[in-house]
Amino acid sequence: MTQPATAGDRPQYVIGVDYGTLSGRALVVRVSDGAELGSAVHEYSHAVVTDRLPGAATDAPALPPEWALQVPQDYRDVLRHAVPQAVAAARIDPAEVIGIATDFTACTVLPTTADGVPLCELPEWSARPHAWVKLWRHHAAQGQADRINALAAERGESWLPRYGGLISSEWEFAKALQVLEEDPEVYAATERWVEAADWIVWQLCGTYARNACTAGYKGIRQDGEYPSREFLAALNPDFESFVDDKLDQPIGELGSVAGRLTAEASAWTGLPEGIAVAVGNVDAHVSAPAAQATAPGQMVAIMGTSTCHVMSSDVLREVPGMCGVVDGGIIDGLYGYEAGQSGVGDIFGWFTRTGFPADYAAEASRRGLSAHELLTEKAAAQAVGEHGLVALDWHSGNRSVLVDHELSGAVVGQTLATRPEDVYRALLEATAFGTRVILETFRDSGVPVTELIIAGGLAKNRLLMQIYADVTRLPLSVIGSAQGPALGSAIHAAVAAGAYPDVATAATSMGRVERAAFVPDEAGAAAYDPLFEEYLRLHDYFGRGANDVMKRLKALRRKAIAEKAGSVDATDTTTSEQESTEGGEAA
Amino acid sequence: MTQPATAGDRPQYVIGVDYGTLSGRALVVRVSDGAELGSAVHEYSHAVVTDRLPGAATDAPALPPEWALQVPQDYRDVLRHAVPQAVAAARIDPAEVIGIATDFTACTVLPTTADGVPLCELPEWSARPHAWVKLWRHHAAQGQADRINALAAERGESWLPRYGGLISSEWEFAKALQVLEEDPEVYAATERWVEAADWIVWQLCGTYARNACTAGYKGIRQDGEYPSREFLAALNPDFESFVDDKLDQPIGELGSVAGRLTAEASAWTGLPEGIAVAVGNVDAHVSAPAAQATAPGQMVAIMGTSTCHVMSSDVLREVPGMCGVVDGGIIDGLYGYEAGQSGVGDIFGWFTRTGFPADYAAEASRRGLSAHELLTEKAAAQAVGEHGLVALDWHSGNRSVLVDHELSGAVVGQTLATRPEDVYRALLEATAFGTRVILETFRDSGVPVTELIIAGGLAKNRLLMQIYADVTRLPLSVIGSAQGPALGSAIHAAVAAGAYPDVATAATSMGRVERAAFVPDEAGAAAYDPLFEEYLRLHDYFGRGANDVMKRLKALRRKAIAEKAGSVDATDTTTSEQESTEGGEAA
Repeated sequence: MTQPATAGDRPQYVIGVDYGTLSGRALVVRVSDGAELGSAVHEYSHAVVTDRLPGAATDAPALPPEWALQVPQDYRDVLRHAVPQAVAAARIDPAEVIGIATDFTACTVLPTTADGVPLCELPEWSARPHAWVKLWRHHAAQGQADRINALAAERGESWLPRYGGLISSEWEFAKALQVLEEDPEVYAATERWVEAADWIVWQLCGTYARNACTAGYKGIRQDGEYPSREFLAALNPDFESFVDDKLDQPIGELGSVAGRLTAEASAWTGLPEGIAVAVGNVDAHVSAPAAQATAPGQMVAIMGTSTCHVMSSDVLREVPGMCGVVDGGIIDGLYGYEAGQSGVGDIFGWFTRTGFPADYAAEASRRGLSAHELLTEKAAAQAVGEHGLVALDWHSGNRSVLVDHELSGAVVGQTLATRPEDVYRALLEATAFGTRVILETFRDSGVPVTELIIAGGLAKNRLLMQIYADVTRLPLSVIGSAQGPALGSAIHAAVAAGAYPDVATAATSMGRVERAAFVPDEAGAAAYDPLFEEYLRLHDYFGRGANDVMKRLKALRRKAIAEKAGSVDATDTTTSEQESTEGGEAA
Repeated sequence: MTQPATAGDRPQYVIGVDYGTLSGRALVVRVSDGAELGSAVHEYSHAVVTDRLPGAATDAPALPPEWALQVPQDYRDVLRHAVPQAVAAARIDPAEVIGIATDFTACTVLPTTADGVPLCELPEWSARPHAWVKLWRHHAAQGQADRINALAAERGESWLPRYGGLISSEWEFAKALQVLEEDPEVYAATERWVEAADWIVWQLCGTYARNACTAGYKGIRQDGEYPSREFLAALNPDFESFVDDKLDQPIGELGSVAGRLTAEASAWTGLPEGIAVAVGNVDAHVSAPAAQATAPGQMVAIMGTSTCHVMSSDVLREVPGMCGVVDGGIIDGLYGYEAGQSGVGDIFGWFTRTGFPADYAAEASRRGLSAHELLTEKAAAQAVGEHGLVALDWHSGNRSVLVDHELSGAVVGQTLATRPEDVYRALLEATAFGTRVILETFRDSGVPVTELIIAGGLAKNRLLMQIYADVTRLPLSVIGSAQGPALGSAIHAAVAAGAYPDVATAATSMGRVERAAFVPDEAGAAAYDPLFEEYLRLHDYFGRGANDVMKRLKALRRKAIAEKAGSVDATDTTTSEQESTEGGEAA
């Protein structure tokens, strides 16, 4: 990590900063070849606020269920701590840094003044919950989202199909409408309703530009337009001018320069005043150039607790069940598509906690293996189809292509001979089948996928990777960096600084990918076909209305818990466990 | 257990002997009131022979897959050891024993001479596998059973609907046909093809009477007739005279006397020569009078690894999916119905082995609880429907009412919040739903069930019992003996000895049951109704041909294992794990 820069007479560096849910990571990258020279992480001191506001008395009323807030100062602290530490770790001269770029969780939004001051930092508003940052996973605006969806469907709004037919409670509009309806005074005081992805850039350079990515994917901006005043007024008469008054701002295209590092931000970071600050971005989408996936047909799957799929294309199509398609949403000049699977690594993790027996735990402990490693080893010894199972991977609901978070998981085929590794493998396969459904839906919509590039923590499970290659019959490439989002931001910083003409060119030099690290084995692929057919049949039976048993079971569960608690509040509490984690794209 | 008998001037006792799969149990019972005074168990020294014949060289060829044999001398040894030990434990005078009766696993059959000498005990045949006892769970005659079923359906044999439309590979005809086709010399030497239930009685009293129970349920005897010579000849020309030559014998009605204890058997047992020996019986069916369940509408569910349901009725109906209806099959003078669930306690046990995590195991260990006890405690804390799951209890296939052992288990509704006790409870409930399907099928066929009496080891799980009461909306009675089959045999011995006029009367004095130990809670029952509807919908979807995914998954599994082994033998091996355990009625 401390290898000196040697390219050219005077080496040049950029900084990528990746803002996650609990911490921010700064990465120092060499412009010439993308070498990662040093990094540092800063944990947010307030983490996620779900109980009481910072500074509130201990007997202050608790926040309602489903709320999740954050503290803007925590974001600045990443600039003040992680950036200088990363520079120090890289042993570079900060004077040789030519640009900085950031990526953020999407759908994390806050109300500010026209100058970008967070309302929660103003004494008159700091005791009001709605004045704080709403984290992506704040899920208390579901009622508003439901109304937005119903009204948009009823009116046939042209933007709705661009989001697979459904917008999320996590997005900018639902959250803003919640503020209006629950605290109109805070709403009135809100001069700007800002994605944190753009707010942090505003902090760095003093300029507010709405990045094309979040404005499109989470801000319902399509073909240069937002939802109309008529639509907004029909939702709530006081919401009519939301876009005009609080949301609309100049759009910053990805890879372009938002502004220059201010003296204040220079002091925080130790970086030269005046260097390029790139337009903001989202953690998942920014990973694409880090994996050199900038051409049409190259789909990046960021596989962690959930999976986010991003892909650019030169055609605009409406793909059923996608999360969104946005002009310039990933790479300027191409249409960026996003899709998602609500539960992936989360499901595997849940299984290791609930389905890993004591004798397996003892073996893993004796052999120094994790639960995942032991189950993977045992599962890898099986032939395709040997376990006799098929599972549905909807434990967190289904994002793409069914867009239904009231769905749940299923396993079919157990016998008294079924072992934990059998179910584990069936769950791995189910997520691969879920990916294949997405790929085939894109293909059938005229947006073919030719290569699958894996980023995220699950890429290290070789069995899982081979299953994905076989099930999808696609060559599987794997990103060459463990810090894809930060590297992707660094690439955007280099382009913003003028070191490369565009993101695609920069990605060629600075991105890293192992091409075709896993290739489909035709025997394996052929063996999976009949299993995929079974998955698809159950997918459509349970997911497309033939038998809504999963929804009825969830309703029965809520009713049982509510009656037990003697309170309708329990209804809300139980849904939260199964909510999507859509905004935490790379989570 | 050593309380002295005091009823009457001279107390009278009877002996019930219950032959299970691995051991035989003798029980000393007072005739006047059914008090259980002493018992003893003798383990079969050869247990189940699945590898090599007793006395075979270690390099002799192994038995084929699916074979399961036993050794007749092990059965005699129960009489020689367990009976005298039980008498000694009871501290009674053996001279006061007035009768003995036995019950046996059904479908355990052996070839003998006309004098009842097992062929395997003759030197000229002892090296021939087909000369030995075929245990109920010998499953190597599936091919023969398939042909019997296909031919019977094609010819419209009137006996087929009496068995729910399908006979089993475990039964007398399939096993005998296997002998004929695989070892015609042994078949030719077989002068009698005898249920072990009748052979042991033959050993005791020197008389061979085919008991009405096994002759009807497992010997395809209906309305006094067996399958015709034409039918048998169509199966195999050499099988034409099987019934006339080897099977047909006088029928012994249940509760009647088969003969008198011989001098030889008196010497084995220490019991008086000449006492009454009752006609043989089956372990499940003989439990009915032990639970005082002798009247129409009283269904006994013997709940262990699997469940066997037996009930008498005064009407003859064809109930879809029952195991059989036999005139006098349980109580002489009534029609005896049998149904079954292939997996019950087996499924719960499988779950504790494969789905019980290390932290749960640690808690159970710390608190001195079994896995079942801990899971039951946690599951009992839930409201009905709270787990949000529905399961299908077909891990061992489905006996009644679908009669399909290619079905398998399923769980629907998992989320990341699903815990082991949730799945455990869903499995408990699934077996109760399976019972309700059986009860409703009987009702809809004109054979109503008015009371459910539980025997077997699972009766001690109070949560399970309450679930059954609520789900079925029936009062649940529980047998008052832990040794139901042996007590039931003792009742038959008392009737055979003339102490009571009939089994029903004897049961009133000697049987023991806690009536309505569990009564339906209407709130619970109402809460289960929608869950049962979900079960039923999935039951019919997966079980009645709408989606044969379970069968295809089993086929894929067999194919995968066979290809892996490079041998078609693997196909057979894998099916065995999921076979029914129908013959081991009370197992």
